[in-house]
Amino acid sequence: MKKLKVFAPGTIANLGPAFDILGVALDNIGDTIEVKENNEGVLKIKEIKGKNKRIPFETNKNAVTLGFLEVKKILNIDFGVDIVLEKGLPISGGLGGSSASAVAGVYAANLLAGNKLKKEELLPACVNVEGILSGYHADNVAPSLLGGFILINSYNPLSVVKLGIIKDLYFAIAHPDFELETRKLRAVLPKHIELKQHVFNSSKAASIIAAIMKKDVKLLGKSIQDNIVEPVRSKFIPEFYDVKKAALDAGAYGSSISGSGPSVFAVTDDKKKAESIGKAMTEVFSKKNIESEFYVSKVSMEGVKKLFNKLFLR
Amino acid sequence: MKKLKVFAPGTIANLGPAFDILGVALDNIGDTIEVKENNEGVLKIKEIKGKNKRIPFETNKNAVTLGFLEVKKILNIDFGVDIVLEKGLPISGGLGGSSASAVAGVYAANLLAGNKLKKEELLPACVNVEGILSGYHADNVAPSLLGGFILINSYNPLSVVKLGIIKDLYFAIAHPDFELETRKLRAVLPKHIELKQHVFNSSKAASIIAAIMKKDVKLLGKSIQDNIVEPVRSKFIPEFYDVKKAALDAGAYGSSISGSGPSVFAVTDDKKKAESIGKAMTEVFSKKNIESEFYVSKVSMEGVKKLFNKLFLR
Repeated sequence: MKKLKVFAPGTIANLGPAFDILGVALDNIGDTIEVKENNEGVLKIKEIKGKNKRIPFETNKNAVTLGFLEVKKILNIDFGVDIVLEKGLPISGGLGGSSASAVAGVYAANLLAGNKLKKEELLPACVNVEGILSGYHADNVAPSLLGGFILINSYNPLSVVKLGIIKDLYFAIAHPDFELETRKLRAVLPKHIELKQHVFNSSKAASIIAAIMKKDVKLLGKSIQDNIVEPVRSKFIPEFYDVKKAALDAGAYGSSISGSGPSVFAVTDDKKKAESIGKAMTEVFSKKNIESEFYVSKVSMEGVKKLFNKLFLR
Repeated sequence: MKKLKVFAPGTIANLGPAFDILGVALDNIGDTIEVKENNEGVLKIKEIKGKNKRIPFETNKNAVTLGFLEVKKILNIDFGVDIVLEKGLPISGGLGGSSASAVAGVYAANLLAGNKLKKEELLPACVNVEGILSGYHADNVAPSLLGGFILINSYNPLSVVKLGIIKDLYFAIAHPDFELETRKLRAVLPKHIELKQHVFNSSKAASIIAAIMKKDVKLLGKSIQDNIVEPVRSKFIPEFYDVKKAALDAGAYGSSISGSGPSVFAVTDDKKKAESIGKAMTEVFSKKNIESEFYVSKVSMEGVKKLFNKLFLR
């Protein structure tokens, strides 16, 4: 009977101006699954721990089991496993919660099947699950799977560019305790924008890519400026601009909405400063009686990983 | 009496999707000026050689002398020089002709004044001349001045990111013998675009930045896809899509309009292949009785440079 434990990191997508094309894997927050082969030959979620409110147990609705089902389609293998999901990521929090669960499921399924596919080859399966749950986009699943910063080069055919990590980079992330559904937050986006908004945002997005490759945290921070998405989505996050200002006042090089929110992220190059920044951000939420918590994280080099993998021969 | 000779390279701006934010300096085509102090204390264009049709001699209209006048403003120095301008770049050809002349003027003036300003400090002067002649943009002057690929991070304040060069990269550039004025070609651009056009183009522009930093000519080539500007401006270049197809059929990794055209560029990683590509492109123009020539160029590492500098003490 095989048993294994897998951790898939949370992610920050968009990073402000790089809407729908960039995401980064976080080092120490994510979803964990424990998978154990069962005798019934049935795929099932046995337990959900952690930030578990309202996560469905149904095989065709849970991101983890949907991940298993995608791998089943590719490799034509049936999985009979009991899964314990430990949600480390908030639901609809803008930190790639469903993506991390999907990636954990896909990765674990492939490991159980004898590691037949390379990580890169698992990407389409992960994107398919994301498509079912919150719309076909790859900027959360790709970094959660592959690690580091990932740029989406093309959706048709699906192709991504691995940009690596910045070792000195720390994210401070404030998560206010309410949910924003990605689908709804997509619906509020403008269908048309001005050409000059495009030029502005693409210069900042391009600068973020340059900053990542040059390992330049300050350039990264100052390039986090978004004239298209932030002005619209920030309306759904009470006190957003005060939270952002608090982050910048506390020394952050840049700050914006993580994914579709409501989490707000900020960047710096020092762990202690990141903690002060996180604290400053949550204090703004507190003053308005919005419960919140903050995380401090570096960038995950490797993305989804095996925590242990015990093989019990029958 | 001081005398010096300066070469400022031509440039490819936009590179397809990176509209208004990216440019690259060419190695072996550009404008050259010979500057000689005169006794009259008057700034004047004495002669224009090369591709010289209709270039104005007037001090307040010629890009070179406008460059001198900008440096005069900054350093409060009067220049009395005779200038011979050798135009190596076509007028309104999409290869940064006016920019190269402006950069040559600004750079030579600073050298004559005792090299008081660093290259980076000369950028605003160069952008000002460009502003007078063809609109305030920096994606031609910045690479002609600084060399390599240059990303515009911000116009206010003006800030650029040096991205370096790709050694193995060759440009094949076909220049059909007619003029397109940048100002007019800006007027045909849409004021509004769809959000999905923005996402598409910014993913390709970001991929181009990644490709430059990774020195990956193939990724660079396949990312030269533009859904915003090329569809509109290509209408002003007869046979554009056939020229592009001929380039790709001859092995180019990507191709689009250089600047606002009419020059068409293509990228490859081999000099001989670049020559075949250039030939294939000009053959398409020939079949339609459009005169054209082609250039093959690597990327210029250093940008504008001194060819010689003789100081004759009075």
